[in-house]
Amino acid sequence: MTTGALILDDIDRAHAAIAPWVLKTPILEWTGNAKDALVGGKTRVVLKLELFQKTGSFKARGALCNMLALDHIQRRAGVTAVSAGNHAIAVAYAAQALGVDAKVVMHKAANPYRIGQCRELGATIVLANNIQEAFAETARIRDEEGRAVIHPFDGLATVTGTATLGVEFARQATELGTPLDAVIVPVGGGGLIAGVATGFNQVGSTATVHGVEPEGAAGMCQSLAEGAPLTSVAVNTIADSLGAPLHLPYSFALVRDLVREIVVVSDVDLQDTMLVIFERMKLAVEPAAAAALAALAGPLRQALAGKTVGLVVCGANIDHASFADHLAVADMRREAAA
Amino acid sequence: MTTGALILDDIDRAHAAIAPWVLKTPILEWTGNAKDALVGGKTRVVLKLELFQKTGSFKARGALCNMLALDHIQRRAGVTAVSAGNHAIAVAYAAQALGVDAKVVMHKAANPYRIGQCRELGATIVLANNIQEAFAETARIRDEEGRAVIHPFDGLATVTGTATLGVEFARQATELGTPLDAVIVPVGGGGLIAGVATGFNQVGSTATVHGVEPEGAAGMCQSLAEGAPLTSVAVNTIADSLGAPLHLPYSFALVRDLVREIVVVSDVDLQDTMLVIFERMKLAVEPAAAAALAALAGPLRQALAGKTVGLVVCGANIDHASFADHLAVADMRREAAA
Repeated sequence: MTTGALILDDIDRAHAAIAPWVLKTPILEWTGNAKDALVGGKTRVVLKLELFQKTGSFKARGALCNMLALDHIQRRAGVTAVSAGNHAIAVAYAAQALGVDAKVVMHKAANPYRIGQCRELGATIVLANNIQEAFAETARIRDEEGRAVIHPFDGLATVTGTATLGVEFARQATELGTPLDAVIVPVGGGGLIAGVATGFNQVGSTATVHGVEPEGAAGMCQSLAEGAPLTSVAVNTIADSLGAPLHLPYSFALVRDLVREIVVVSDVDLQDTMLVIFERMKLAVEPAAAAALAALAGPLRQALAGKTVGLVVCGANIDHASFADHLAVADMRREAAA
Repeated sequence: MTTGALILDDIDRAHAAIAPWVLKTPILEWTGNAKDALVGGKTRVVLKLELFQKTGSFKARGALCNMLALDHIQRRAGVTAVSAGNHAIAVAYAAQALGVDAKVVMHKAANPYRIGQCRELGATIVLANNIQEAFAETARIRDEEGRAVIHPFDGLATVTGTATLGVEFARQATELGTPLDAVIVPVGGGGLIAGVATGFNQVGSTATVHGVEPEGAAGMCQSLAEGAPLTSVAVNTIADSLGAPLHLPYSFALVRDLVREIVVVSDVDLQDTMLVIFERMKLAVEPAAAAALAALAGPLRQALAGKTVGLVVCGANIDHASFADHLAVADMRREAAA
């Protein structure tokens, strides 16, 4: 088992460095009749409310770690990134915080609300026709303009950022008196779960780490089955934040070594869970942020019955019309089933 | 200046007694470009996320304090209450927690989602045609069935419950390193602000306490102007949780003595602020819970500029269709103004 070069001292040092620009997001135990019905009365659920993080997602942590690692010449040349949205917002935010120029490539079908958030943070936005074109355009900007690429999910600095979340969550749960037996993390590219698993491992937690992917973007499951990161993944899911077009060696190796298993949930599960989260947790989340609870209510329910389970609730940048549509569809389904 | 008989020892003792059934809800500083534009860059905003409280509102605190104060004969006879919704849910919850039978009178036009929540918690629901009839029906149940009435906003036990919120918020803000200069509290009947003001006062905080009412239910403003609690208030607002049909001496006297001022906001302000809270805070709230931010962005903006201001964010029991409608209307208004 390896955690690469990343040890607790590194994570704590990085955390202290980014602390001026990130929040220690709250944790909260979720209780009540709806919880009991959905995941079982004896299973305890502890939410890590990372959706309250600056920029609305954990991506701010990795973007800041990356930019702080740049030397001043690289910082002057600016940065670039490619993203479905949350990483784009995080890069724009970190760049604004550190006085670095950012040019971000986004899919033209990206959520308009997220594009607007990036612009508001002062980033230049380049729209691409598809994800492959977006990656190519990012490479062109890197080569022609000398900008550093801030990767959305791979590499030491990015995973150091997500490891700060893992360490923070593990310690908070212990302080709250509910040390975790397991933690469930949504998986897109794999950078979040790689860091969270590293953080839990390094802080000495014995919690098992479980990932969840949408059926329509289950590239990490397939990568694990094949023993190597897939270089191309077909993506078709409402959880656009979890749709990575490929996987990469650094985060893949950490997932392979530190994660117990990855399960999948359907888009229907995600919508239904968004309605539960709205009604019972009072949170307004995008589909990706419903994934961990959908996994605990579905494929992981039996395996984690009676345990204290941490859920990373993250990814909350969605426009109100899309949000309303998802809840309305889930409610119609519930009515039809009643 | 008087705080009645309620002193810090009483509040702390009550808080310890209800602790098994209530959460210490998190606080969170709200920062970002949207905050700067809305309330000013130098004003700091600390949110008390009481919408995560059991039952979705602070009302659980008062309901528990009331029921714990009953002797075992009264408990066996059961309780009754009248409410637009959040208090009804709180009474049902507290009754279930303590093994007491509850019969709750609700306006037939109350949010169906809230009625459903009460039923789910095991309470018997009686629907009334209007608020006056609801109060009469509650009195009848009290007299004929010998049930204790759990008041939604007045009386020592109820205000002790809300005082636990005030003490908790003041202490948390100080621990976070952001002791409050001011706190803004939504006002319905006045029990929440009476308790919060008492709590801040008793814990030795120098924060000024400000209330906010909807224009269509500004009975506390009028009561203060007249020097006595109004016995009848016309209610016409989307913030149904803030529509009390009358005011009462105990909470009125605390408001008169401890609250700096009460301001009013319009239903349009509440809707617009719900959209901001959805987009920027990631919270799904009912109109009442938007009132404190609407006040800080509006009538209190200048007076509290540059100060550290606490906002009580509370009241989150709304169905998704009503929620979607409010956001859609606010967005149309924003588009039209752009």
